[in-house]
Amino acid sequence: MERNVQTFIACEASYNEAGTVIFGAPFDSTTSFRPGTRFAPQTIRSESIGIETYSPYQDADLEDRHIFDAGDLELPYGNAERALETIEGFTKKILADGKKPCMIGGEHLVTLGAVRTVYEKYPALRVVHFDAHADLRRDYMGERLSHASVMQRIWHLFGDGRIFQFGIRSGSREEIVWGKEHVSTEMFTVKTTDAVARELGDFPVYLTLDLDVLDPSEFPGTGTPEAGGISWNELRGALMNFTGCNIVGFDICELSPHYDQSGASTALACKTLREMLLAFSKA
Amino acid sequence: MERNVQTFIACEASYNEAGTVIFGAPFDSTTSFRPGTRFAPQTIRSESIGIETYSPYQDADLEDRHIFDAGDLELPYGNAERALETIEGFTKKILADGKKPCMIGGEHLVTLGAVRTVYEKYPALRVVHFDAHADLRRDYMGERLSHASVMQRIWHLFGDGRIFQFGIRSGSREEIVWGKEHVSTEMFTVKTTDAVARELGDFPVYLTLDLDVLDPSEFPGTGTPEAGGISWNELRGALMNFTGCNIVGFDICELSPHYDQSGASTALACKTLREMLLAFSKA
Amino acid sequence: MERNVQTFIACEASYNEAGTVIFGAPFDSTTSFRPGTRFAPQTIRSESIGIETYSPYQDADLEDRHIFDAGDLELPYGNAERALETIEGFTKKILADGKKPCMIGGEHLVTLGAVRTVYEKYPALRVVHFDAHADLRRDYMGERLSHASVMQRIWHLFGDGRIFQFGIRSGSREEIVWGKEHVSTEMFTVKTTDAVARELGDFPVYLTLDLDVLDPSEFPGTGTPEAGGISWNELRGALMNFTGCNIVGFDICELSPHYDQSGASTALACKTLREMLLAFSKA
Amino acid sequence: MERNVQTFIACEASYNEAGTVIFGAPFDSTTSFRPGTRFAPQTIRSESIGIETYSPYQDADLEDRHIFDAGDLELPYGNAERALETIEGFTKKILADGKKPCMIGGEHLVTLGAVRTVYEKYPALRVVHFDAHADLRRDYMGERLSHASVMQRIWHLFGDGRIFQFGIRSGSREEIVWGKEHVSTEMFTVKTTDAVARELGDFPVYLTLDLDVLDPSEFPGTGTPEAGGISWNELRGALMNFTGCNIVGFDICELSPHYDQSGASTALACKTLREMLLAFSKA
Amino acid sequence: MERNVQTFIACEASYNEAGTVIFGAPFDSTTSFRPGTRFAPQTIRSESIGIETYSPYQDADLEDRHIFDAGDLELPYGNAERALETIEGFTKKILADGKKPCMIGGEHLVTLGAVRTVYEKYPALRVVHFDAHADLRRDYMGERLSHASVMQRIWHLFGDGRIFQFGIRSGSREEIVWGKEHVSTEMFTVKTTDAVARELGDFPVYLTLDLDVLDPSEFPGTGTPEAGGISWNELRGALMNFTGCNIVGFDICELSPHYDQSGASTALACKTLREMLLAFSKA
Amino acid sequence: MERNVQTFIACEASYNEAGTVIFGAPFDSTTSFRPGTRFAPQTIRSESIGIETYSPYQDADLEDRHIFDAGDLELPYGNAERALETIEGFTKKILADGKKPCMIGGEHLVTLGAVRTVYEKYPALRVVHFDAHADLRRDYMGERLSHASVMQRIWHLFGDGRIFQFGIRSGSREEIVWGKEHVSTEMFTVKTTDAVARELGDFPVYLTLDLDVLDPSEFPGTGTPEAGGISWNELRGALMNFTGCNIVGFDICELSPHYDQSGASTALACKTLREMLLAFSKA
Repeated sequence: MERNVQTFIACEASYNEAGTVIFGAPFDSTTSFRPGTRFAPQTIRSESIGIETYSPYQDADLEDRHIFDAGDLELPYGNAERALETIEGFTKKILADGKKPCMIGGEHLVTLGAVRTVYEKYPALRVVHFDAHADLRRDYMGERLSHASVMQRIWHLFGDGRIFQFGIRSGSREEIVWGKEHVSTEMFTVKTTDAVARELGDFPVYLTLDLDVLDPSEFPGTGTPEAGGISWNELRGALMNFTGCNIVGFDICELSPHYDQSGASTALACKTLREMLLAFSKA
Repeated sequence: MERNVQTFIACEASYNEAGTVIFGAPFDSTTSFRPGTRFAPQTIRSESIGIETYSPYQDADLEDRHIFDAGDLELPYGNAERALETIEGFTKKILADGKKPCMIGGEHLVTLGAVRTVYEKYPALRVVHFDAHADLRRDYMGERLSHASVMQRIWHLFGDGRIFQFGIRSGSREEIVWGKEHVSTEMFTVKTTDAVARELGDFPVYLTLDLDVLDPSEFPGTGTPEAGGISWNELRGALMNFTGCNIVGFDICELSPHYDQSGASTALACKTLREMLLAFSKA
Repeated sequence: MERNVQTFIACEASYNEAGTVIFGAPFDSTTSFRPGTRFAPQTIRSESIGIETYSPYQDADLEDRHIFDAGDLELPYGNAERALETIEGFTKKILADGKKPCMIGGEHLVTLGAVRTVYEKYPALRVVHFDAHADLRRDYMGERLSHASVMQRIWHLFGDGRIFQFGIRSGSREEIVWGKEHVSTEMFTVKTTDAVARELGDFPVYLTLDLDVLDPSEFPGTGTPEAGGISWNELRGALMNFTGCNIVGFDICELSPHYDQSGASTALACKTLREMLLAFSKA
Repeated sequence: MERNVQTFIACEASYNEAGTVIFGAPFDSTTSFRPGTRFAPQTIRSESIGIETYSPYQDADLEDRHIFDAGDLELPYGNAERALETIEGFTKKILADGKKPCMIGGEHLVTLGAVRTVYEKYPALRVVHFDAHADLRRDYMGERLSHASVMQRIWHLFGDGRIFQFGIRSGSREEIVWGKEHVSTEMFTVKTTDAVARELGDFPVYLTLDLDVLDPSEFPGTGTPEAGGISWNELRGALMNFTGCNIVGFDICELSPHYDQSGASTALACKTLREMLLAFSKA
Repeated sequence: MERNVQTFIACEASYNEAGTVIFGAPFDSTTSFRPGTRFAPQTIRSESIGIETYSPYQDADLEDRHIFDAGDLELPYGNAERALETIEGFTKKILADGKKPCMIGGEHLVTLGAVRTVYEKYPALRVVHFDAHADLRRDYMGERLSHASVMQRIWHLFGDGRIFQFGIRSGSREEIVWGKEHVSTEMFTVKTTDAVARELGDFPVYLTLDLDVLDPSEFPGTGTPEAGGISWNELRGALMNFTGCNIVGFDICELSPHYDQSGASTALACKTLREMLLAFSKA
Repeated sequence: MERNVQTFIACEASYNEAGTVIFGAPFDSTTSFRPGTRFAPQTIRSESIGIETYSPYQDADLEDRHIFDAGDLELPYGNAERALETIEGFTKKILADGKKPCMIGGEHLVTLGAVRTVYEKYPALRVVHFDAHADLRRDYMGERLSHASVMQRIWHLFGDGRIFQFGIRSGSREEIVWGKEHVSTEMFTVKTTDAVARELGDFPVYLTLDLDVLDPSEFPGTGTPEAGGISWNELRGALMNFTGCNIVGFDICELSPHYDQSGASTALACKTLREMLLAFSKA
């Protein structure tokens, strides 16, 4: 008899047979306003039994995929660098085994760990970034490793022309001004995803989704809700535009379950992850 | 002096003078994910004092209607068949007295009790069904009487061509495939309600509204919120399209008040019920 | 060393240098359904650290403005007339010092205190009113000073042709009928704001925003949520239409923080207040 | 068929046969900190189905009593004097019909309305008062009709020697000093109830219970929780000590359901009311 | 690499090496008031990381035990008999393999399934029962399989002299009267546990803990909180009194996580389960 | 006119006239389970208007004290060492100015910053520590600066015989064993405070209160609630025993407001801080 196993719904492949590996990065120590995203990976798993495995949008079913759920990494609270190293180590193993990483955050800083590692393997890497916030600060209260600086840190890996942001509607003036010169940003909306996806062609792409890109009406369960966001139908359409791209890794971040009394934000995160897994983890 | 009476706002007619009879069906024993809809009828009554009796949409007022509120049925927890029998008994009496039933659920299974009875009186019955979920499973974990199977059970009453679904966006692959052959389904949206309403002509119609057809942003207070739903304005418009039909019974289901911390879902349910009563309970 | 100062984010000017003065009116004694707006001013201040000072919509920054935050008035619970007098006294001082008042409610009745005073100084005053509710009752349960009567009371100051309502979707039949004769009302939507703003020309305008004009999906944290409202993007656009008007005072009312478990309503209120301050408190 | 009747559990006598009459006083307009007690009477009724009608403490059953539940009075928000007049009018009728009033608050100010009326009929009246707060202020922010002044107002009816307070652990220095001279107060505990009850002999007694006399661990659902209170078992024992007294009216105040997420405070209030009805409404 | 495993903290033995087997029984379909205990087993597991594995009360550590956590049974919603059969089947296997069952409810009815099976193996079985409610009804609204009847059903297995209840403080008059004749009940308190434990000697004992025996101040997160309960320290002492008995099976029931906003009830349940495992699963 | 000032109730002295200085340390980055204590200082200030300034326990009033409230330090999220340095810098200034520091946490790690500084000035320093948890780990997941290690870190300042713990009821076996050799610990209760206080004589004492020493029934609003704690009356008595000691600094930690739906934990924290200020900040 097996000990109690809990995976994201229908992601029950063995590691060996899996093409995609889910893991959680329960870290929120640099969150500047309201912490709590550390609870997201586990909550997403346990609430995933409330959704169907079948997507009527894609006419596809998670039960036809081979996905392994590795559970959560053990990340030290209060030490961002060590947390990132742990994420890098695990991502490296997944990539070395020829599998695709799917990370569930945690705060957005965790993306830095995954991207650093994916970039090592794919030097031509591009990053597609959905978010309400630009995340382009040089530092936050003096800390360079901060959820508010994660895209700035990623930019330092490879410079201009690699980062494509969508849905941004919040930032300091300095961030927004800097961003105009160094990254490609669609402010407020996600209408250019189709064009960008075509432009990306065969380049390897890491796609990072900060769920607060959604309007807080549809996704209130997050630390810094920003009015004026996009709808889930818009997000779904935008994500689907990247189905044909060469997605080599992806993540979903910033659900904060304790601010989600109704459970609707968690349910939305589960459904979004299902759609991403079906679109980006073919076969 | 009368004992404390609590009715849905302005539904204070006597039974004899009433054309429509409201009753609650506080049952949620087959709910597969998060129970709690049993509290809906009572909460809808008590919170209804927060809305107006007048609808600026229809320029009509509940105070000009004759509606009786019978309170809640006593339904045995954990026994679906007996609960359905109780609903049937009460619905039968209402119909026998020449009145129209308006049921407040409870989980969606309760609709089976009402439809069975209405169908007995109106053999040409059609069913209009708003929902996020197809509810077409043959059974749920072996149980044939389940909220997830209610439309399948109803289909068994009269077969193909009688059920019209709108807004469906969740189901197992098997359900969706089966549904394509046996019921009329508009996936995701409610754009065909006008056409369907005209098609229904003078046929007797039972209209059942699972409130989770709405987007969870507008209606988070339900057991299984499904992102990507319709707006309240769309729902209102769709419901109004059936104003001219021969509605012989209707219900409103699946509010789960304990997941509605803000009260906005309950207020929406009250307002929707007001609009339905004004539209379907003329005079 | 200064005692602990808490202001709306970046509103740290001294009184003398300020052109605009923020103050809170924590009063909700006449609220007929669910009280709690008294907590709004303080919660808006403390949560305002969660938003940016910079608006990418207006490309403007609160740090470039001179705004003084005077804290909250001490208003006696259960005595509406005395509360209004206190608001009048404070508003009078602000106006006498050549500054512009920005009031944070509280229930909507507080607007009467501010408008009475502003009207004294600007006899040609017009009032722009965003709200889900008409607020035109003659009285509420016999009380003439009620949040539900505030626009009726204001009308009594100067009669027809001065009040412009937007987004109204709830009221008694009597209110709606009366309103059609005496005030200018756009029911349900805010599409005419541009035209009205042009029509207002140089007239002095007091703009009052009852946040429940928004759809409860975006703003659940209020006492009487009304389905079918406008979106934040629509509201922002509508407010911006008045940028060129002669706004001589404004307020933001009816956030009720205890019904805002996720904090998203409070964050929206903060962001809306930032946009209003940037638009209406130039220089 | 009768319209939906909702009473406190098993209190289903007709007015004529009843010896005791329950009514709600949903008023909280003078509440100085966190309002919401207006929802208590209705919530107590609807949640009372969760308790038994039988008390194993008294070996007695509500089904053997004759109690009428009149529902809630309609009290104008924001006008304390008119609210008190309404309470007085209703209490007068009950007393005139030879019945005993049992009022469910609401904030504690409502007790003044009931006591004024009971005192008219029983000039020798004594008042037994359980509370965390002395409620002896001369006024609150200038208002003499305030929950914080209710016992001061009652004292003005008949002066020294009539008021017996228990469990008091909060007040201004002035209140506490004044109280030592004019009322009989047991600070912190309820150990003298037995002695006081014997001392009261046959005097007519009005017993008022502010539920915040309980420790907030057992009763968090109230506006101003005060640590260091008594336990429910202590309260029950203390109340039982007055069983032999000539209780001519009683009330239970200050449940605020919106601060009672678990429902435990409401359940406790229901159980306490059951015990009071069984003890003070014999036959 | 192993799929994500989630067990109660430190219960990570393999099935073969384990002496005790934990399993969840997520069933609440007969709950008469507020459902939700179905979420308890999973929540207890995931929150158990918040407690220590070491007990300073017993100077013992879960890491020194061999306990297997089998996860949750799949129980059909709305069908009590089938749910009980599933519990019986699983318990039978555990017993056949020479291991001790530790069940996490779910509502209290699930105990019937476990006791039926344990009784088959141990015909001399005694049942120790901690609870606020007598659970001795013949039926509830006509249903014989109900959480409110579970001890009555168990009594029917073996008759008088086998059931020992503690802490009971709620029931219908009929239940309490019946109980006095047929079971051994300590009303209100748990002072006789020491004496009863000695009396039980070597008899095989099934111990069932309905957590609502605790005062709602310490354990609000349950469906029917009953004021006047025992403290956790009293419960812990009472449980320890049975350490020397021949406990052949045990369970912990009626945590309802959705009514536990603070998480304190869940944390208490975790700590209590730790103490029970350390006391009853020696070696 | 002064900008909006918000202080703990009645702590309105200027810095110069003050003998005691309150400051907040909103830091929770090393919290291992549920973060959120960063919100405590601000919430304690804003909710303090709900308590009285007068203590009937001590017959003393905050209005007679001279206390300055400096607001919150700006502490970098995710960097424990820098946060501690900021606390040290501020504490040093207070001590240099001859004033007594009163810190409001934040997680318990912040105490290390204050104690380090106080110890510099008072080399004979003793530390009195109320807590449910021993906080004596060498590290937590490799991090030596952790809330779970704070007393171990403090011990490293001065070694054995200086730390006096009370109410401890949770820890790893290793911590508890280590503690028995190196610190003075009263497990579970606080009965020896009187004796310890006498023993401390004139030694300078830093008193640190982790509020989770209280039973979670009275104080649920904390990250790691531990059943079996002491009551507020016991805590108050224990604190009062140190009134005659030479308290040179003190703090109150670990309120986590987001887990305090009723507000009772915050109200208790406010009342406790009042009692501490009255006892330890004489004159």
